[in-house]
Amino acid sequence: MSVATLDGRTVRVALLGCGTVGSEVTRMLIDDADELAARVGAPVELAGIAVRRPDKHPELPQHLLTADAGKLVESDVDVVVELIGGIEPVRGWLLTALRKGKSVVTGNKALLSEYAAELAEAADTSGADLYYEASVAGAIPLLRPLRESLAGDRITRVMGIVNGTTNFILSAMDSTGAGYAETLDEATRLGYAEADPTADVDGYDAASKAAILASLAFHSRVTASDVHREGIAGISASDIGAAKLLNRTVKLLAICERVTADDGTESVSARVHPVMIPRSHQLAGVGGAFNAVYVEAEAAGELMFYGQGAGGAPTASAVLGDLVAAARNRVAGGRGPRESAHAALPVRPMGQTPTRYHISLDVADKPGVLAQVAQVFAVHGVSIAAVRQRDRLSTASLVIVTHLAPDAALQATVEEISKLDVVREVVSVMRVEGEDS
Amino acid sequence: MSVATLDGRTVRVALLGCGTVGSEVTRMLIDDADELAARVGAPVELAGIAVRRPDKHPELPQHLLTADAGKLVESDVDVVVELIGGIEPVRGWLLTALRKGKSVVTGNKALLSEYAAELAEAADTSGADLYYEASVAGAIPLLRPLRESLAGDRITRVMGIVNGTTNFILSAMDSTGAGYAETLDEATRLGYAEADPTADVDGYDAASKAAILASLAFHSRVTASDVHREGIAGISASDIGAAKLLNRTVKLLAICERVTADDGTESVSARVHPVMIPRSHQLAGVGGAFNAVYVEAEAAGELMFYGQGAGGAPTASAVLGDLVAAARNRVAGGRGPRESAHAALPVRPMGQTPTRYHISLDVADKPGVLAQVAQVFAVHGVSIAAVRQRDRLSTASLVIVTHLAPDAALQATVEEISKLDVVREVVSVMRVEGEDS
Repeated sequence: MSVATLDGRTVRVALLGCGTVGSEVTRMLIDDADELAARVGAPVELAGIAVRRPDKHPELPQHLLTADAGKLVESDVDVVVELIGGIEPVRGWLLTALRKGKSVVTGNKALLSEYAAELAEAADTSGADLYYEASVAGAIPLLRPLRESLAGDRITRVMGIVNGTTNFILSAMDSTGAGYAETLDEATRLGYAEADPTADVDGYDAASKAAILASLAFHSRVTASDVHREGIAGISASDIGAAKLLNRTVKLLAICERVTADDGTESVSARVHPVMIPRSHQLAGVGGAFNAVYVEAEAAGELMFYGQGAGGAPTASAVLGDLVAAARNRVAGGRGPRESAHAALPVRPMGQTPTRYHISLDVADKPGVLAQVAQVFAVHGVSIAAVRQRDRLSTASLVIVTHLAPDAALQATVEEISKLDVVREVVSVMRVEGEDS
Repeated sequence: MSVATLDGRTVRVALLGCGTVGSEVTRMLIDDADELAARVGAPVELAGIAVRRPDKHPELPQHLLTADAGKLVESDVDVVVELIGGIEPVRGWLLTALRKGKSVVTGNKALLSEYAAELAEAADTSGADLYYEASVAGAIPLLRPLRESLAGDRITRVMGIVNGTTNFILSAMDSTGAGYAETLDEATRLGYAEADPTADVDGYDAASKAAILASLAFHSRVTASDVHREGIAGISASDIGAAKLLNRTVKLLAICERVTADDGTESVSARVHPVMIPRSHQLAGVGGAFNAVYVEAEAAGELMFYGQGAGGAPTASAVLGDLVAAARNRVAGGRGPRESAHAALPVRPMGQTPTRYHISLDVADKPGVLAQVAQVFAVHGVSIAAVRQRDRLSTASLVIVTHLAPDAALQATVEEISKLDVVREVVSVMRVEGEDS
């Protein structure tokens, strides 16, 4: 390892990007300098701030500003904090930093979910630290517990609400009964959704986070493109209504599981899609822009982590925690736990991933309908957990919840059922979590 | 720092104590050896197990057993895992280990809550690690997030359910309406309470944990004797009933706060006592033997951590996480973050700690009663937040919730009110948390 320890001098920090989170990081580095120095064991000095347009930031210390991020990274700094986001040109700068033995703290989920292997290798080669707590679930301490606290356990499942925008929209649809389009408009008006909400509502943001979580939890390499992704644009008021009738609610969840096949071989399933969960489930009560992640491990059992998933100050808290760790390692001469993909589990395709479906059908009111429908399930090897007929409170007259079955078999079942003469309409199809199978 | 790194050889572990948790740790060390080696970067070898009576453990590898813990600690081991509990003789063994540069992993809350300073100093001097995640809230990753993830933030409050026995009893009293004594009997019968339940029901266990949490959260030294402690033995069915009428429930909470006086000086308040909280509060839904801890920090905002607070496997998960960290530091040559008491905040006496009271009174049914009672509050400088008179559902005819006031002023107010002629009975007095003040 080629990283030199510091002998009494300050830890010099380069900040790349100074938006909502970066300006909060800057404020904390300046205001809390004494306290940070006590925790690190040496002063932490902000050596430079790279922003696109230095003249647009009169509020920042002018002598620290530069438009040349590449030059700042190559200057005499010990830690690079990156809060710009996106893949290029950030990837090049961070690789340069790591290769030169400078530690990196980043909240860049897009980059990490695609290039974690390359970045980790650069860090390992030089002995630098690579921390990215802020990339998932904002202020919630989640990556460090997964990587360190549970390092002696076997994680079997990570499931959570990791996108505040979609959670705000689904919470609002649930409480108002309104449809998706008008609720999205309202969320945009209130600032909970961006002008172009694609990354959030189509699940790209959550899929990046799922890739990061699955990689850490299962010591494997999972990239965003490995994650099965469905957004919330297809959720209708009648989906939410069908859930309500069953005392359930709909959430967009990131779900990462260790799946063991009958022959004992293990694989990883990582997916993001809307899920129907019981209102009594802990994740059901997580409203608005909050995040919550549920972790199951063989020895620890069930754990839950809850807090603010976004915002300047909460995300800055996660960045500062990582920065203190990286700086402390500089001073003490150690290094944080490295990335580990030693398990190298393959990713299981969605079609082979075991899931459960909730299906609401509007069917013809005559004898033998259930028998016909049940026959389709049987043909596809899908076993039925519960059936409710003639629910007077809804338009649906047949509600079915399945046992666990491969997702492809469930999809095929729904498709075939929708073609039955006796089925007037498939009112709602939704995956189910959080109940006994 | 005098700790030598390991060059390719195994990390040798001494285990002191092999009860419920220790036997689970032993099993995981043996069964998961390959996986642990991958995470540590070197094999982790169980070098010896010290138990009081080796002949009583036919289930353990016989060649590893010894009755001489002191000798095992001084032998050629790198990490000492202590799961015996209690102060002596464990304190001496762990000091010896740390002074000789051997890292220590322990779940010993009694020891840590009294002798953390001495142990941390020994660790700092030799450069060894001292980890104790298992001492608070079992499997829940809590100490590492407080110490590391929030290292760049300022924690203002840690509040939680950290004792499963008392939570089981209070949950049962709430759901059955039964009294304390019979519910304790039932808990003992079911194995949720020990034959001598004193440490749990009188709050000693929770107070030790509060001391550990306050020390870490506020970078100060807080010992168990600094923690104000009230148990649950005085909680009556009528207290629970009074809470229920207000849509609240009663929990035994450990509460650690950073208190800022009017002149800006800071201090720490650490206390364990029963608290009335709204049923909508996240801690209200934590039932049975589960633990949950709520953390507030200036930048991060509100966080919550939830999971199993006790039991062999969950606690072993926390121990193994610490062991992997200590072993990895041996292999990589680094060291975990040291204890830090740099803030050295004084502990605020309970009488000066701001709290809020809920008081149910049975009063004479005549005019002017409220005026007399309110006058007593005014004399003591306690301001009233809400009053409810003539509640037909309860025996109490006057229910008062106060604003924040020094606990001593609240105590004095209650004492004086109880002596008023118009007050027939003080039905229930309980502190309140989780509501706007």
